[in-house]
Amino acid sequence: MMTFTAQDVVYMQMALELAEKGQFTTTPNPSVGCVLVKDGKIVGRGFHFKAGEPHAEVMALREAGEAARGATAYVTLEPCSHFGRTPPCAKGLIEAGVVKVISAMCDPNPQVAGSGLKMLADMGIESAVGLLEEKAEWLNRGFLKRMRTGKPYVQLKMAMSLDGRTAMASGESKWITGALARADVQAERAKASAILSTSATVLADDPLLNVRWQQLPEKVKAEYALENVRQPVRVILDSQHSVQPTHRLFQCSSPVWLVSQMPRSLIGFPSYCEHIQLAPSRAYLSDLMTELGQRQINTLWIEAGATLAGALIEAKLVDELIIYIAPKLLGDEARGLCKLPHLTRLADASVWQLHSIEKMGEDMKAIYHPRMTEPTC
Amino acid sequence: MMTFTAQDVVYMQMALELAEKGQFTTTPNPSVGCVLVKDGKIVGRGFHFKAGEPHAEVMALREAGEAARGATAYVTLEPCSHFGRTPPCAKGLIEAGVVKVISAMCDPNPQVAGSGLKMLADMGIESAVGLLEEKAEWLNRGFLKRMRTGKPYVQLKMAMSLDGRTAMASGESKWITGALARADVQAERAKASAILSTSATVLADDPLLNVRWQQLPEKVKAEYALENVRQPVRVILDSQHSVQPTHRLFQCSSPVWLVSQMPRSLIGFPSYCEHIQLAPSRAYLSDLMTELGQRQINTLWIEAGATLAGALIEAKLVDELIIYIAPKLLGDEARGLCKLPHLTRLADASVWQLHSIEKMGEDMKAIYHPRMTEPTC
Repeated sequence: MMTFTAQDVVYMQMALELAEKGQFTTTPNPSVGCVLVKDGKIVGRGFHFKAGEPHAEVMALREAGEAARGATAYVTLEPCSHFGRTPPCAKGLIEAGVVKVISAMCDPNPQVAGSGLKMLADMGIESAVGLLEEKAEWLNRGFLKRMRTGKPYVQLKMAMSLDGRTAMASGESKWITGALARADVQAERAKASAILSTSATVLADDPLLNVRWQQLPEKVKAEYALENVRQPVRVILDSQHSVQPTHRLFQCSSPVWLVSQMPRSLIGFPSYCEHIQLAPSRAYLSDLMTELGQRQINTLWIEAGATLAGALIEAKLVDELIIYIAPKLLGDEARGLCKLPHLTRLADASVWQLHSIEKMGEDMKAIYHPRMTEPTC
Repeated sequence: MMTFTAQDVVYMQMALELAEKGQFTTTPNPSVGCVLVKDGKIVGRGFHFKAGEPHAEVMALREAGEAARGATAYVTLEPCSHFGRTPPCAKGLIEAGVVKVISAMCDPNPQVAGSGLKMLADMGIESAVGLLEEKAEWLNRGFLKRMRTGKPYVQLKMAMSLDGRTAMASGESKWITGALARADVQAERAKASAILSTSATVLADDPLLNVRWQQLPEKVKAEYALENVRQPVRVILDSQHSVQPTHRLFQCSSPVWLVSQMPRSLIGFPSYCEHIQLAPSRAYLSDLMTELGQRQINTLWIEAGATLAGALIEAKLVDELIIYIAPKLLGDEARGLCKLPHLTRLADASVWQLHSIEKMGEDMKAIYHPRMTEPTC
């Protein structure tokens, strides 16, 4: 087994930072970064920008030119070995004369899954995997979940007061959280492959559910030019077919997928609106995830009310809870976070694990994952 | 104005750590620490342990003996100038030949309030105030609030799920938070001058509301011996006189003060049980705080239900919200954190400021203060 040096860590960290530059645009592909180093000097850097455009390794090799000969490549994901829209990167690295390849992680894509590494080994190129793997996993958690399970990575967003309330009894909810938290929601939407909501939310709030570049955090705007903005698909659960072409969803021409269990006509709807008809089933939400996975949705960002939130939690379909917590108290009569009608015993409550917590202006942003193991205390 | 050196900071930090050793026992006095330094060497250290026993300066001077002559004293609170149960510390420092006194903060106690510093100045002793003042303020926030306003510092403790629920619909609440959070509650109780609860809580849970040494965090147990344990006063709002001598409150012989607005007999109650009769008033909770301040309660730790929590919040009587947040979701039917029946508009909601957040096993402990200023975003 190869051991990594402190210098290896520095270069892989750079490769991860390059990979992040693609995080708003690469879906359905993963975000990948590559750094080429020869004689202690960086000779090439690259990242994947979007599907159909060159992979990170190709970009880095282009920058390096002849200097790639004898270099070490730091790649955030195992180089691919298959001909897709672009030729295999493992082959490109071999042809350019790279002598060593360090990958942060293996690619679980069944078309790759170790064969890129094998291709390198077959050519006598030294390779190692697993440097900063956790960070690489996190960056592509959507793509990786889909490759491993066929379903998207599900992020349930909630914005609440300190006492877990999302709106006053009257429904008034503008705004519980502050400007920085709301800008962060825009950034999270921008990273997502799709946004899921319900017709109830559409009828109540008539939202656009798009990415509004002007409202992105300044730091994101500095790196993500307006002309590059990719809009996530809007997926709307609409069992009663109550969404209409006049809703504000259709003021933005990115795809809208209306989901129900019955046939419906889309006459009057714009061409970017599709209908997804799911078979009648109690496992309807799970079926939807399978369908969205087949449609290459890596990350699904959910903004909805307490009913859908509760149903997703009860169905154990949530990979990540993102909770914006405003420092306000709204009291018992205000609206709650999630409906869990089947939960009566404390011992049966779902338990989560804190991933991170961050101050965001006056608010906090907490990220939780479902807890996998028993607690230690 | 005197400037402080990095070395001054180190010594004052030591004095603060000494002061903390008294935090479970000094009430109604403040916790104070003192370090004496001569020629770059620590020659004396002391802290106040409990009312009636020597002040921090006296303990440090005792340790220093003759070495105090020519030393600098670092004290976390302005040395006192009055004869109380012990002679004035400013005088002691002068007589011992200390040449310089650095205090973290002035003592707002009207019996001191600058006169200790004046006494030093009159004798030609150099003095300075304000080093690590914020930390010194925090340590004695109870004592300082009472000195400045006549009322205790009010800490409202809540333990809740991620969605702001304190119990299942059935009332089941054992346990929402984990063992570390519950041990921390014991440590917070141990620091408090008094614990406030209600007869509703007594009737529902029949709690002891005392400090159980065995349940303190290991770190506290290591510093706070069982034989030194001081029990806070238990203050119970009991308007209907429903607390009985058979309740478990009376299995522990520390003071219990039953509060109501009507005369009541305490026949059958133990001698450590008192009745506080408040005048009938809508400002009943505020009047209670004044009464508790007069009874030398520095910090009041509140463990009660959603009704009292809401009433205290509406009356703006809370100085600190301490919220233990368990990583569970209990759903809309579970019991809420606080009743705020008069709140209908989001703009009227109370707004809080995050002081700190800390992981505590699986849970988080968040401390909030009422927000004093307008938000910046």
